[in-house]
Amino acid sequence: MMILNNEEVSALLSMENCLRHLEAAYRELAEGAAVNRPRSDLYLPATSSNGVYCFKTMEGALSREKVVALRLNSDVIKWEEKGGRIIKEKVPAAPGNKWVGLVLLFSAETGEPLAIFPDGIIQGIRVAASSALAARFLARPDAAILGMLGSGWQARAHAQAMCEVRGINQILVHSPTKANRESFAAEIEKQLGVSVHAVPSAEAVADRADILVAATNSVSRVIPPEWLKPGMHITCVKITELGEETLAKVDRLVIHTRKWAPDNYITGFNDEKVEAHDPIDLLTDGAKRTSFTPKQPFWLNAPELKDVVAGKLPGRQSPEEITCFNNNIGLGIQFAALGKAVFDDATAKGLGREIPTDWFLETVHP
Amino acid sequence: MMILNNEEVSALLSMENCLRHLEAAYRELAEGAAVNRPRSDLYLPATSSNGVYCFKTMEGALSREKVVALRLNSDVIKWEEKGGRIIKEKVPAAPGNKWVGLVLLFSAETGEPLAIFPDGIIQGIRVAASSALAARFLARPDAAILGMLGSGWQARAHAQAMCEVRGINQILVHSPTKANRESFAAEIEKQLGVSVHAVPSAEAVADRADILVAATNSVSRVIPPEWLKPGMHITCVKITELGEETLAKVDRLVIHTRKWAPDNYITGFNDEKVEAHDPIDLLTDGAKRTSFTPKQPFWLNAPELKDVVAGKLPGRQSPEEITCFNNNIGLGIQFAALGKAVFDDATAKGLGREIPTDWFLETVHP
Repeated sequence: MMILNNEEVSALLSMENCLRHLEAAYRELAEGAAVNRPRSDLYLPATSSNGVYCFKTMEGALSREKVVALRLNSDVIKWEEKGGRIIKEKVPAAPGNKWVGLVLLFSAETGEPLAIFPDGIIQGIRVAASSALAARFLARPDAAILGMLGSGWQARAHAQAMCEVRGINQILVHSPTKANRESFAAEIEKQLGVSVHAVPSAEAVADRADILVAATNSVSRVIPPEWLKPGMHITCVKITELGEETLAKVDRLVIHTRKWAPDNYITGFNDEKVEAHDPIDLLTDGAKRTSFTPKQPFWLNAPELKDVVAGKLPGRQSPEEITCFNNNIGLGIQFAALGKAVFDDATAKGLGREIPTDWFLETVHP
Repeated sequence: MMILNNEEVSALLSMENCLRHLEAAYRELAEGAAVNRPRSDLYLPATSSNGVYCFKTMEGALSREKVVALRLNSDVIKWEEKGGRIIKEKVPAAPGNKWVGLVLLFSAETGEPLAIFPDGIIQGIRVAASSALAARFLARPDAAILGMLGSGWQARAHAQAMCEVRGINQILVHSPTKANRESFAAEIEKQLGVSVHAVPSAEAVADRADILVAATNSVSRVIPPEWLKPGMHITCVKITELGEETLAKVDRLVIHTRKWAPDNYITGFNDEKVEAHDPIDLLTDGAKRTSFTPKQPFWLNAPELKDVVAGKLPGRQSPEEITCFNNNIGLGIQFAALGKAVFDDATAKGLGREIPTDWFLETVHP
C-alpha cells in the first residue's frame, strides 16, 4: 500500500488533468456508473479544550476506474466573530500544530487498499476545479475579468482553475487584510502570468468582474444581490457566502448536488441524525434544538452539475444571463477521480513510501 | 500510529473485558455522551468478476474515552442458494485470498490517528458480546442449556460469551454439515470446559434450549415461531434468521438499534439512497427497483439495548416470558469501545508496529 504526502500529490496533479478527470467522473455519475455516499459529520463538543471536535467522512466510487475513495477529516473546530462576520476556523490540534485529513483509496475489483494520503491538496483543487468546470458551461465565453473575494488557499486555486477554462486577462482581488490581498496579487500574477490587482473594496471588485468568486472563510453573506449584473457568473465555496436573496436574483443556477447539507450526528441528540447545514446553533444553544430543522432551500430544484457536464441539461443560453454555481459541497467521487489519477501517476513514477498491503488484509471475516 | 494484526488484537481482548467496555459504551450512549454514524453500504455491481463489490462503513465516538472509530469493509459479495436457503458469502478477493476489514482509531482531543488494525476479531467478539450483554438482562437467571444453530466463527464466539453471563452447563449445537458441528462440539467443549453435544436436528436443539442462538450465514428464517416456549431467550446474528412471525410470538423484545437497515447507495440508482435491508433484490432485478422500499417492521418500537443496559427500561420480568434480542447490526461505538481498549493495552505492553503519525498529518486545510 502506498503512502504519499501533500508535496508528492501536489507535484502529480496539474489543474488541466484535474478538470479532465472530474469531467469524466461527473459523466459517470450522470450515467449511473458512479456513486457517492454523502458527507456525514459526527460532533463531540466535550472532548477538546480547544473547540468542538468533528469527524467528517464521505465516500465515492467509480465503476470504470474500479476504485473507491473514503475521505475523512478529524478536526477541532472553532466559530468566532471577526469584523461582524462569523468565521469557522479549524484548530491545528494534532502534534506539531497540524491538521488531520486523509484520503483512503481501495480497489473495487479485489477490495484491497491501494493508497493513503493527506486530503489537503486534493481538497483545495477539487473545489476550484469543480467551480471552473461549472464556469466552462455557465460563464460567458468572452469572460476576461475574474473577481476574487478572499485571498487564501481556495482563492488561489480558484484563480488558477478559472484561467484554465476562460481567457482571463485580469484578476481583481479583495480581502479584508491589506497585506493578504497584496501578497495574493504579487504571487498569483507571477504564477499565472496574468495582471492581478489588490482592491480595497469588495464592491469595486464585483463592479468590474465577469466571473465573481467568493472564496472566504465567512459563514455569513459576502455577495449581496445588488452587486449582480447581466452577463455575470458567480460562485462560492460556502452556500452562506451568497444567501437566498442573492441566489434568487440569478437567472440560471446550477448546483453541485441535491444533497445540500451533511448528515450531522451530535452527542446529546439521542443518537439521531440532526438536520442543519452548519450545527453551530445546535452546539451553542442546545435548549432550542427542536427548532433547528432547516427548511429545504428553494434552489434545491436547480439542475445538478453532473447533468450539465453530461449534456443532459443546458448551460448558459444568452450573453445577458446571470449564472451561478452553488453548494460546492464535497462529493466522494471527486476524491475517487483525483485520488486514482494521483495513485496511477505515483505508481508509474515510483513515488511514495510502501507499507505491506498484507498488514491491512485478514484471513477471517466473522 | 500503531498497526496491529488480528493475532495481537485477539490476545488483548478477553470476553470479560469486552462485556465491561461495551456495557460502559451503551451507558454513555443512553446518557447522550456517545454518538454513532450508522452503517452505510456502497455497491458497485460491475467492478468485480467474482461477485458484487460493497464498501461498508460505520463510525462511533465516545466522549469519556475521547476516541472515534471508523470501521470499514471493502468486500466482494456473492449470494447463493444452498439447501433451499439463500446464503451470503464474502469472497476473499484480495491478494493471498484474504478479506479487507479495518478499524481506524482517532483521538477526539487532538484529531490525530492512533491506530489501524483489521476488524475481524473485534467484529466476531462485538456481535457475541452484545448478544450476551442483552442475555444478561433478558435470559432467565437459571438458564443452563445453550442451544446453538450454526457452528462457525460467530457461533463459537457466542458460546464463549453466553458462558460469561449465565451458568451454562450444557451446549447443544446443530449445523447442516455433520463434520462442522462435530468439530465445534469437540473444540468448544475443550475450550470452555462445558459439555457440548452435536445434534442432527435444529428442532431438537431448540426443544431443550434455555437460550437459543441463531448464528448462521442464512438470509432466510432459521427459527420458526412454533419452536418458542415459555422462559426461553432467543437471539440471532441476522434479522432474517428469525423473521416477523417468530418475533411476533416473543413477549419481551429488545433491539440493538432503531436504525435497522444500512443506508444503501448503489450505482444505477441515480445517486440516491435506497431503502433495503439487503439489496440482493435490487441488484438482481433492477427493473422492479421502485417497489423495493421496505415497510418499517413492527418491532422497531421495541426498547433499545442501551436503555435496558442503563436501567432506563426493564429487562425480563418473569420466568415465563419469552425474550428476544434482535437486529444486532454493527454500531460504531462497539468498535470505538473495544478498539480503544485494545489500543490502551497494546500501548501498555509495547505491542504492534509503529509508523510515523506525521505521515497522516498535514500543514494545510483548504
